[in-house]
Amino acid sequence: MPPGRVLSGMRPTGRLHLGHLQGVLSNWLKLQDEYECFFFVADWHALTTDYAAPFQISGNITQMVLDWLSVGIDPRKSTVFRQSEVKEHAELFVLLSMITPIPWLERNPTYKELLQEIKDKDIHTYGFLGYPVLQTADIIIYKAEKVPVGIDQAPHLELSREIARRFNHLYGEVFPEPQTLMTAVPKVLGIDGRKMSKSYNNAVLLSDAPDVVEKKLLGMMTDTARKRRSDAGNPDVCPFFVTFHVLYSDEGTIEQVREGCAKASIGCTDCKRMVIPRVLASLEPIRKRRAELEKDPSVVESILKDGRRRASGVAVGTMIEVRKAMGLSGC
Amino acid sequence: MPPGRVLSGMRPTGRLHLGHLQGVLSNWLKLQDEYECFFFVADWHALTTDYAAPFQISGNITQMVLDWLSVGIDPRKSTVFRQSEVKEHAELFVLLSMITPIPWLERNPTYKELLQEIKDKDIHTYGFLGYPVLQTADIIIYKAEKVPVGIDQAPHLELSREIARRFNHLYGEVFPEPQTLMTAVPKVLGIDGRKMSKSYNNAVLLSDAPDVVEKKLLGMMTDTARKRRSDAGNPDVCPFFVTFHVLYSDEGTIEQVREGCAKASIGCTDCKRMVIPRVLASLEPIRKRRAELEKDPSVVESILKDGRRRASGVAVGTMIEVRKAMGLSGC
Repeated sequence: MPPGRVLSGMRPTGRLHLGHLQGVLSNWLKLQDEYECFFFVADWHALTTDYAAPFQISGNITQMVLDWLSVGIDPRKSTVFRQSEVKEHAELFVLLSMITPIPWLERNPTYKELLQEIKDKDIHTYGFLGYPVLQTADIIIYKAEKVPVGIDQAPHLELSREIARRFNHLYGEVFPEPQTLMTAVPKVLGIDGRKMSKSYNNAVLLSDAPDVVEKKLLGMMTDTARKRRSDAGNPDVCPFFVTFHVLYSDEGTIEQVREGCAKASIGCTDCKRMVIPRVLASLEPIRKRRAELEKDPSVVESILKDGRRRASGVAVGTMIEVRKAMGLSGC
Repeated sequence: MPPGRVLSGMRPTGRLHLGHLQGVLSNWLKLQDEYECFFFVADWHALTTDYAAPFQISGNITQMVLDWLSVGIDPRKSTVFRQSEVKEHAELFVLLSMITPIPWLERNPTYKELLQEIKDKDIHTYGFLGYPVLQTADIIIYKAEKVPVGIDQAPHLELSREIARRFNHLYGEVFPEPQTLMTAVPKVLGIDGRKMSKSYNNAVLLSDAPDVVEKKLLGMMTDTARKRRSDAGNPDVCPFFVTFHVLYSDEGTIEQVREGCAKASIGCTDCKRMVIPRVLASLEPIRKRRAELEKDPSVVESILKDGRRRASGVAVGTMIEVRKAMGLSGC
């Protein structure tokens, strides 16, 4: 049995942060040893919300792929490519549009939520409505059996299965229905206590210098109810504790911190200093690898070029089957 | 000044009929001498309504292109190609989707009409809603300045102009706004008196044998109020008269027929026989050319292959500009 095929992508938001590492990349690192993985830069998807200001996309792609490589995504094991460079995604998107009922898209909970949430941009566009159709094309063009998703993306994948099923029903069995590879997404909070996010400007970047990381962590919000050093604190509501101690400290340290905070025997800075070296140590090899990679400015380009070749090989093959199934082959 | 560029396409419905000749092809014949023309087989568009039964598309394409060539569309003058073979249409469709507001599509009168009209197929699909976006991509990817349209398609082209304008506004001037080349579409009725249409099965095909044409015309509906040979008829409500005499007879014959019909001095068969030879004569060179072309079964394929090369040359060039304007070029 060959290993199953996994497909996963990220929008090119630029330099990545600890939230991406803990939530996505650490998972990719495991997957690339178990499956045949296709990891792609979802640059067309970035346009669904950012069509009015796409001008940083190219730079963002370079930075993001550098981060992927720095954490250990290995282009010899996995196919790393850019969505917009494999035109067959667009061709399949056109074909799948024809068979996708509008109500399927309108009832997508993420669609409805985002329409309500995003007020600063006009996303009431045709492309934004069709986001799951493009996503389905991205997945099934590689006949991916597994797609790692967090719990909130599960409805999207269900929609992809429905579209694949409809295609198979109309034109014959071409696509496997992609299955969910449910992944735990740990809570990673930013220095202001909200979810770590580039757009909140509260993130610790993978490429931050050690002194920057240290400064950010020392300045990070803690239990707001613990106003003075002498007040007892509650680690379970402390953004710093639930993120950094939980993810980086050993059990002994966690015990020590819990007790010290609850009894006010240690201050917040003491508490932070107990884990900062571990965070820095974990980032050190990433930063080193990045520094190596940055020496050759063409590295990302050549990796994407090779990935494009490999991804195209599969995508072109699938489209031959698709056109044949639909009766669209040569005259 | 180079001649302007014209873009026009037809859905591959198979063998064409006199309605296509009078309404579209005779116009293309004039255009190909005045402009740089791109004539394309809109096979993806055929899927917007016929996604559930696309299996005849390839055969239909061959027959339709044979008809184009038979009437005199000249691949040395014009670029004749198949939409689905120039993937850049799909890429531009993806990009234009991102900037096209859904209300622009929903308010399209043709969309609303067809949703009401077509009851035997479920066309409430994402692709059908986005039909004008794909059409816009088809047009502006060649930077076509002129698009021949009948009066009922004018709103579609207005939408294309709006989308092109929005692109230029967001990313800089790339596309000319395509202008309407309004074309007169003469009334061509079928043998049952309704609009000549393949789906009504009432058409006189360009490739019908002379005896078939004759038989169809002799059996064609005339003024239904003229029940007996001795009744006076009214040519202006006679489907045969308004189609065949108006399009094929000279003024003298028309006068003769008007008088003979109104005075009941000629019967319907007499009337028909006065124009049938002209119809047959006009179809003769078309049929002859078709018979020539049919001798080489690869002729359509090789013309489309050459057309694809020429169309791709332009489309690829436009997409380089588009990606650059949007900041999507290489890393």
